Amino acid sequence: MSTPSWQHGPSAAADQTSLRRANLGLVLRNLRDRGPRPRARLAADLGLNKATVSSLVAELTARGLVQDGGAERGAVGRPATTVEIDGRRVCGVGAEINVHHVATLALDLHGDVASQRRLSLDAAGQPPEVVIGRLATLLAATMNDLAERDALPVGLVVGSAGLIDSATGTLALAPNLGWRGVPVAALLREQLGEPAYPIEIDNEANLAAVAEATHGHPHQGDILVIHGEVGVGGGIIADGRQIRGHRGYAGEFGHMTVDAQGRRCGCGRRGCWETVVGLSRLLDLAADPDDPVRAPNLGLEARLDEINRRAALGDDRTLVALREVGHGLGIGAAMLANALNPGVIVLSGYFAEVGPWLRDVVEAELAAGVLAADAGGTTVALSTLGFTAAVRGGAAVAVEHVFDDPTVVDRRVPEELGVIS
Amino acid sequence: MSTPSWQHGPSAAADQTSLRRANLGLVLRNLRDRGPRPRARLAADLGLNKATVSSLVAELTARGLVQDGGAERGAVGRPATTVEIDGRRVCGVGAEINVHHVATLALDLHGDVASQRRLSLDAAGQPPEVVIGRLATLLAATMNDLAERDALPVGLVVGSAGLIDSATGTLALAPNLGWRGVPVAALLREQLGEPAYPIEIDNEANLAAVAEATHGHPHQGDILVIHGEVGVGGGIIADGRQIRGHRGYAGEFGHMTVDAQGRRCGCGRRGCWETVVGLSRLLDLAADPDDPVRAPNLGLEARLDEINRRAALGDDRTLVALREVGHGLGIGAAMLANALNPGVIVLSGYFAEVGPWLRDVVEAELAAGVLAADAGGTTVALSTLGFTAAVRGGAAVAVEHVFDDPTVVDRRVPEELGVIS
Repeated sequence: MSTPSWQHGPSAAADQTSLRRANLGLVLRNLRDRGPRPRARLAADLGLNKATVSSLVAELTARGLVQDGGAERGAVGRPATTVEIDGRRVCGVGAEINVHHVATLALDLHGDVASQRRLSLDAAGQPPEVVIGRLATLLAATMNDLAERDALPVGLVVGSAGLIDSATGTLALAPNLGWRGVPVAALLREQLGEPAYPIEIDNEANLAAVAEATHGHPHQGDILVIHGEVGVGGGIIADGRQIRGHRGYAGEFGHMTVDAQGRRCGCGRRGCWETVVGLSRLLDLAADPDDPVRAPNLGLEARLDEINRRAALGDDRTLVALREVGHGLGIGAAMLANALNPGVIVLSGYFAEVGPWLRDVVEAELAAGVLAADAGGTTVALSTLGFTAAVRGGAAVAVEHVFDDPTVVDRRVPEELGVIS
Repeated sequence: MSTPSWQHGPSAAADQTSLRRANLGLVLRNLRDRGPRPRARLAADLGLNKATVSSLVAELTARGLVQDGGAERGAVGRPATTVEIDGRRVCGVGAEINVHHVATLALDLHGDVASQRRLSLDAAGQPPEVVIGRLATLLAATMNDLAERDALPVGLVVGSAGLIDSATGTLALAPNLGWRGVPVAALLREQLGEPAYPIEIDNEANLAAVAEATHGHPHQGDILVIHGEVGVGGGIIADGRQIRGHRGYAGEFGHMTVDAQGRRCGCGRRGCWETVVGLSRLLDLAADPDDPVRAPNLGLEARLDEINRRAALGDDRTLVALREVGHGLGIGAAMLANALNPGVIVLSGYFAEVGPWLRDVVEAELAAGVLAADAGGTTVALSTLGFTAAVRGGAAVAVEHVFDDPTVVDRRVPEELGVIS
């Protein structure tokens, strides 16, 4: 039998340095998830000896990630000093390149928003360098927001629609932007003046999925996010882990062929799911070409507000259009639920904005189309993150890198002067 | 921000006992994956101190899982005694309840086959108790095989088609067996006389996927298995972990609706993928109802041998039928590849048996239907495990439990007499 890469348990690969990093991360994550505690209790909770925990806490303190908190409340005898996360010094930054806007959002270690910015533009009509330049300007302002809080960026994670080659930071193909083979990370790195922090690129729906998974849905470890804008994409979190796929291309739900004789898609093929449920399809169904709701210069929110307004007034054509899209959405959702049995399907992006009109139809299709009784326990939820899901997810991924390996944050105190034992 | 269940890194939950178990498993797994080594080198490789490693090795020895091997080869100075896995004492047992047969297979800790048995029957025509009784008889013989090798079963994992509620060991629904709500684990436990080892139930295609992931495919950490018999199911291994879904119902690919106006499925709905690519569909396309290849009493292998024979002779109708099935298989495979971007799609069960006739067509559909260039890097492979994939996967899961927690195997030496420090 060859060495299996399939496994239940922890990786066998471990050496002293990676063990130290893993233990630093373990302490930091434990403090986040279970709150401040004295060193002795941390040691007991983690099954590590006290000297090791003191050394780990000292190193985290030197890196500005934890600090001494108050005395333990309710303790018997002499109260011990607690250790707590020092969340404000470092921030993860998320950014997004979208057909309709560029945006940024920074989260500190507590998960609080430290900065949020957005600029509307029509990216599809412009060369990549111009759009990336606008994002660089927005990011400069974001970094300024952080500097004013005395916080450092530890990483930038940029989301975009389309196929992303994460290894090289390249946008391989984005039909709705009309881009192909754009080295986003390199261009951004250059325009930002070669910053010290790492820059990663990911699919925007993958990042939206991370944001949903950190945002309090029930069964948040098993989430399927279906993200609709002009295109349709998605993200999968299964058993607490994001499924990225062999080359990072997982979640291209919008290009599943659901109707081989169907409409032509932006990708050049026919009958892709996004031709049935994408925003353009809803607009085609709901309004004539010269209807103001389809005016090219109308913002996305204004467009959806108008759709919602008409639906609330009982406009027949709008309601039929929403039902039709909900029907198509439910059929695809049921296929994905048969394949993946998620705990919850989160409708995000434009699907969430008009979600109250779609949800019942989607639930009915799930009940009918999933083999398991009760739709396999899969529920339907609407994202409450609006169009910030991708930037929030990007920032969360950047923050998570600190919990994976706290040594990505430099020491404020040189090692020889520090208290590291 | 609420506690995220999404995470990159190791779980924060750890206590002394679970840490000890994890370390026992770490040593055992490391010996399997990297071969015998002296204690000192094990300690260095694992970043643990020597006393800890000696204590762990002593406990694993007392449980009969490791033993002293030869002296280290090529060592400078006095050669140190190596520690190696003692693989033969414990076995994981896999079993399968299939429409056409019941079967068992036992693997020792080395992954070598210790017993393999199979009984053809027509399960669909019989009450669950009868079929499970036949399996119990087969298992008694299997356990006898193990006893003759002086090996103990550490666990039994039973695969079946259909929806399995793993938590209760119940087969919730198996359309092709005509069973619903059958407490397979409880019935088997009773018929086996309440054995000491645990009994688990899982979907057969999930187990087939485990078998493929431990069987030397390239990119074996990112495998999608599409398993065809009368029904069609599958299993997903992503990033080295099996995706089971919220209630364990992931992988029901066969019931994705691919043609709402299509044929009636065994599940009662229309146009499920298995109505397009299941074995019955191939037989419908390839032969008239009175053709001997469709005789009800013909064994599965004999049926497929005949199909292969006709195809090899260039029989037009057979070749057209195989192309048609390959086409449908490729369309669904492309949908799954867009969603999951696996490294390899393994065609298993009957798809593998007639795979040489399907493969080119499936690859062409993947190239056409996947958004990413080069089908996102997804290749197509044929299983070489034949119809033993599910039993082999069940046995592998049972064995893996030992690596997750070696304390599931009792000590041969009572603790007070042992060498545990």
